[in-house]
Amino acid sequence: MNLIILEPSEVGDAGDVSLLGTRAAHLLNVLKVAPGHRVRVGIIDGPSGVGTVQSLSDAAVALRCAFEVSVPPRPRVDLLLALPRPKVMRRLWAQIAALGVGQIILTNAERVERNYFDAHVLAPERYRPLLVEGLQQARDTRLPNVSIHRQLKVLVEDALDGLFQSGLRLVADPVATRPVSVVVPKSLEERVLLAVGPEGGWNTFEIDLFGAHGFQSVGMGPRPLRTDTACIALLALVHDSMSSRHSLMAKPIV
Amino acid sequence: MNLIILEPSEVGDAGDVSLLGTRAAHLLNVLKVAPGHRVRVGIIDGPSGVGTVQSLSDAAVALRCAFEVSVPPRPRVDLLLALPRPKVMRRLWAQIAALGVGQIILTNAERVERNYFDAHVLAPERYRPLLVEGLQQARDTRLPNVSIHRQLKVLVEDALDGLFQSGLRLVADPVATRPVSVVVPKSLEERVLLAVGPEGGWNTFEIDLFGAHGFQSVGMGPRPLRTDTACIALLALVHDSMSSRHSLMAKPIV
Repeated sequence: MNLIILEPSEVGDAGDVSLLGTRAAHLLNVLKVAPGHRVRVGIIDGPSGVGTVQSLSDAAVALRCAFEVSVPPRPRVDLLLALPRPKVMRRLWAQIAALGVGQIILTNAERVERNYFDAHVLAPERYRPLLVEGLQQARDTRLPNVSIHRQLKVLVEDALDGLFQSGLRLVADPVATRPVSVVVPKSLEERVLLAVGPEGGWNTFEIDLFGAHGFQSVGMGPRPLRTDTACIALLALVHDSMSSRHSLMAKPIV
Repeated sequence: MNLIILEPSEVGDAGDVSLLGTRAAHLLNVLKVAPGHRVRVGIIDGPSGVGTVQSLSDAAVALRCAFEVSVPPRPRVDLLLALPRPKVMRRLWAQIAALGVGQIILTNAERVERNYFDAHVLAPERYRPLLVEGLQQARDTRLPNVSIHRQLKVLVEDALDGLFQSGLRLVADPVATRPVSVVVPKSLEERVLLAVGPEGGWNTFEIDLFGAHGFQSVGMGPRPLRTDTACIALLALVHDSMSSRHSLMAKPIV
């Protein structure tokens, strides 16, 4: 937990926050804070800042927080993902949020089993804490938007222009030869939408549908990867391609 | 399972193989093979090839295999990894093997808990099937070598020159500003050794130790990632940097 994420409703007028549960336990048992110690905090979809420990007990920590003026920008990558099986999706939420995406668009595809959509892991009360876990890992406050679509054709033809209004559209295709680093221009200022298929890949109809709606195919070489591995690898490659023109100048926030 | 991996001892003189268990079940229930069908096969650390289904029963499949003359090259990336907790390591074996590494060097570090080394997941009979699972996913036959080191200093000072004789040495450091794509030259023909630290990172002594032994620091930007996410992301970035000069010419094996 590299950042303590707060709900807007938890923060009082003077920046006072009273923590219980997991976050308090982390401060008490892992960071072993004492009054006067300062910790990184952030409000969901709001600014980050610094919380100063005011007092603590066995299970509670009181902080007084000061927040930055500006809110961090939403990550410029969006993910369109053919829904993997529930066990894999449960593991992916936090990792996707940590890598940084503006939104997660989950969809059906021929090779997605229908009953995956009945899984508990698609209930907001189940996945939201996992997304927050990813934000706390990566020190971000911008919670990815999530939308769930049971028909790929309806999503791509009718809904997608509303969800992703402009930018570069990529579809991962194991038989494509052009890597992300060739397709994503170094000077790109636009958003990128990355579509990652199910185990076994998109079928021909689906690849053609993406192609007809402005998606360019990208590949990762001759080694077929599991969906979850491919998803993490491709998000890393897209972020790297988009940011590499800044790489020698940017200072990380330590 | 994109390739059926065979042990050398399973293959008869004429290329005859009799499969039972998981591999037979995959051929029967997922690929739904019939006599005459051809499937991809490969011998561990040997050539890949094609197996033609000779006969099948409820639980067994007989193949006659023809192998290529040459053995695929060992992946040119090696991984040095501070041992993560057992649950995370268990999930990583197959993903690391699928991404492609020549060897996996597991080590202690200050922020690694000692009892991680007692875990069953470090017994070859437990991790070897997971590595094979990764090879079957990625259509590779080259099983990564694995070595386990309980003292980082002894590993780096005494053992490492034997394990990794020449090539580019990288250490992932969250505070480093140079990304993989800047540090790995496009025309690199050498091997790359990538060192990935524990949750919480390497300590200052450890970073200095790596620096004194020829490692260059690489970073992934301002978002700290979990070890497993970072490991997958960094292996993808290293492979991409090493291969990108071929990217427009290389044809994937479909």
